[in-house]
Amino acid sequence: MEEQGGAGGVRLDPWGTLEVKDYDRLRRVFGIRSFSEVIPALRELGFEPSLHMRRGILFGHRDFDRVVVEGLRRGEPVAVLTGFMPSGRFHFGHKLTADQLIYYQRVLGLRVFVALADAEAFAVRRIPRREAIRLGVEEYVANLIALGLDPDKTVFYFQTNRGAPYYRLIQLASGRVTAAEMEAIYGDLTPAKVVSALTQVADILHPQLDEYGGYKRVLVPVGVDQDPHLRLTRDIVDRLSGVVELMRPASTYHKLIRGLDGGKMSSSRPDYTIFLTDPPSEARRKLMRALTGGRATAEEQRRLGGVPEACTVYDLYLYHLLPDDSELLRVYRDCRGGVILCGECKRFAAERLLEFLERHQERLAEARETAWSIVEPPSF
Amino acid sequence: MEEQGGAGGVRLDPWGTLEVKDYDRLRRVFGIRSFSEVIPALRELGFEPSLHMRRGILFGHRDFDRVVVEGLRRGEPVAVLTGFMPSGRFHFGHKLTADQLIYYQRVLGLRVFVALADAEAFAVRRIPRREAIRLGVEEYVANLIALGLDPDKTVFYFQTNRGAPYYRLIQLASGRVTAAEMEAIYGDLTPAKVVSALTQVADILHPQLDEYGGYKRVLVPVGVDQDPHLRLTRDIVDRLSGVVELMRPASTYHKLIRGLDGGKMSSSRPDYTIFLTDPPSEARRKLMRALTGGRATAEEQRRLGGVPEACTVYDLYLYHLLPDDSELLRVYRDCRGGVILCGECKRFAAERLLEFLERHQERLAEARETAWSIVEPPSF
Repeated sequence: MEEQGGAGGVRLDPWGTLEVKDYDRLRRVFGIRSFSEVIPALRELGFEPSLHMRRGILFGHRDFDRVVVEGLRRGEPVAVLTGFMPSGRFHFGHKLTADQLIYYQRVLGLRVFVALADAEAFAVRRIPRREAIRLGVEEYVANLIALGLDPDKTVFYFQTNRGAPYYRLIQLASGRVTAAEMEAIYGDLTPAKVVSALTQVADILHPQLDEYGGYKRVLVPVGVDQDPHLRLTRDIVDRLSGVVELMRPASTYHKLIRGLDGGKMSSSRPDYTIFLTDPPSEARRKLMRALTGGRATAEEQRRLGGVPEACTVYDLYLYHLLPDDSELLRVYRDCRGGVILCGECKRFAAERLLEFLERHQERLAEARETAWSIVEPPSF
Repeated sequence: MEEQGGAGGVRLDPWGTLEVKDYDRLRRVFGIRSFSEVIPALRELGFEPSLHMRRGILFGHRDFDRVVVEGLRRGEPVAVLTGFMPSGRFHFGHKLTADQLIYYQRVLGLRVFVALADAEAFAVRRIPRREAIRLGVEEYVANLIALGLDPDKTVFYFQTNRGAPYYRLIQLASGRVTAAEMEAIYGDLTPAKVVSALTQVADILHPQLDEYGGYKRVLVPVGVDQDPHLRLTRDIVDRLSGVVELMRPASTYHKLIRGLDGGKMSSSRPDYTIFLTDPPSEARRKLMRALTGGRATAEEQRRLGGVPEACTVYDLYLYHLLPDDSELLRVYRDCRGGVILCGECKRFAAERLLEFLERHQERLAEARETAWSIVEPPSF
């Protein structure tokens, strides 16, 4: 559903944000294909697309058709893998990935692998070891379980505790990439960056090894900023042919939810980021100060309407708080039509947010216990 | 035992070679200490020095006193670790290291670890995987056992099959060294070189981890060309303080036996290198063409004497074929005195060599079977 008008003639749609053109550019430049192309094939197989798929949050893919759709069609096992760097608390940006994993597990029946990137946390952020392990289990694994990932059907692991065949991939990959190629992707190289990047390659590829289940078909859902890892991994797969036969992984790319000031949502910007463990009162306080797409005055807003595409509260509706499309569409129209003003809209969002947080945090205590019981922490 | 004269006034001794001054320089420049300093302490503890120690082949060390002697004195466990790159056949250069390991195991009672550096073989020489594994087991492990290393008391392992705590060290180390430091040691960096060098750091340090026996005291006997690895490892140990408490490893440095043309002894120069699996007739053929320290004519040699220090056959006596010091001294004097000429001397050396090879190769068949039964090959 698209319509023209408002905000200086930029093309708008209720699923979009103002940056939509950037995503189009990304697709063109890097050869990422539009995800909407593959939705009919999923429907043909009897699968309803996920919220992220139908709203265009999942805007691009590589080989989703060849790897995932074809695998489902043939009844072959398919895995989905993603990684979380345990360097801070779990927030609504992480939930976006979590929701995708849950969809793949429940609806498509894929095998889920979750990498806890403690090696990267150390290499990139110098997170102390104990803290990375605690965060990995209590923030990432626990929140994923509380959100609905089935602990019995999910492989959670720390990068530093994965076993020899996994590390063998790091060493193999190290011989199939030049320093210049890595510099083009990662900037100035440090030994830590080299090892960390090759470790991500091993994360992506290791489910294909017999030792880890032999899932030849692997899907990696990431934010588009992670595409360099995927491109590197695909090249390495090709170059390993003859040594170990692997399949290029599929990947999907989602738009990134913005922080409450319109900048990046990140653990390092806690005032503009809502964590799933925020006390509800604190979450409400942050939300009430969020940047919106409102006009200078109430009169102006009633006359011209708001700009939901520029609104970080609308982001929360779109990605998380209003899974019902008709509800979302109502909010979008009321905003664009000047029917609802920002204060009222924020109170409505806060209600939904607090409802979610309270229910989620009730589940979290038990999920933490489960998390400690199923994840093997590294030895040192 | 030193004496003056001959060969242009260079100081000579029956244990030495013409390069002895270079070794002195190495000691000065890199702070390697003379091994002869620590021999009295070993004697005090009731241990006879090895052939390599008493002949000055082991010419230098770092912390042998603090790590090894002190450990023996206190009755604490001490490990000795060395690595072999399975990129070619086992030759008399390798035997030099093997003899040291056997001495440490039998005489000093140290725990022996042998790394089969298959990761390095791939990174540095692109040795195909299967070939590296075959060479590791059939050439290195088998020859070490046939030479006398006790398979029940030795830990043999492939780098790509060592388990998580070992690989954890690679990742930890990667965060404690800069690209500039690694470049200073290894030249232009490639991802493969980075991973390979850090893997060697893990080789050296991992016996200290509880998972591998908790041997805090580790000795690494190497050729002096391997010292950069040791220096890097020592720095990393210091920088890991607070994360994991390790002890700086001790190291010893041996002179390198020369190939039969006076150049490098190496698997890649098979005409000038005697392998322990050479058919005796072939070994004899190579030996008979070896570069000696003989004079232009027999008359001249009778008058001036030969120069054993310049003779590659004398190297074989010194390092391997004449373990009895009085026999070695007799050959040395007969050569220097012009009593024996090169042809006769080579026939004597060939006799000793063939005797050794025949006995050794008899043991090798059984040692190969043992080797395959005790070493776990990597999975892929």
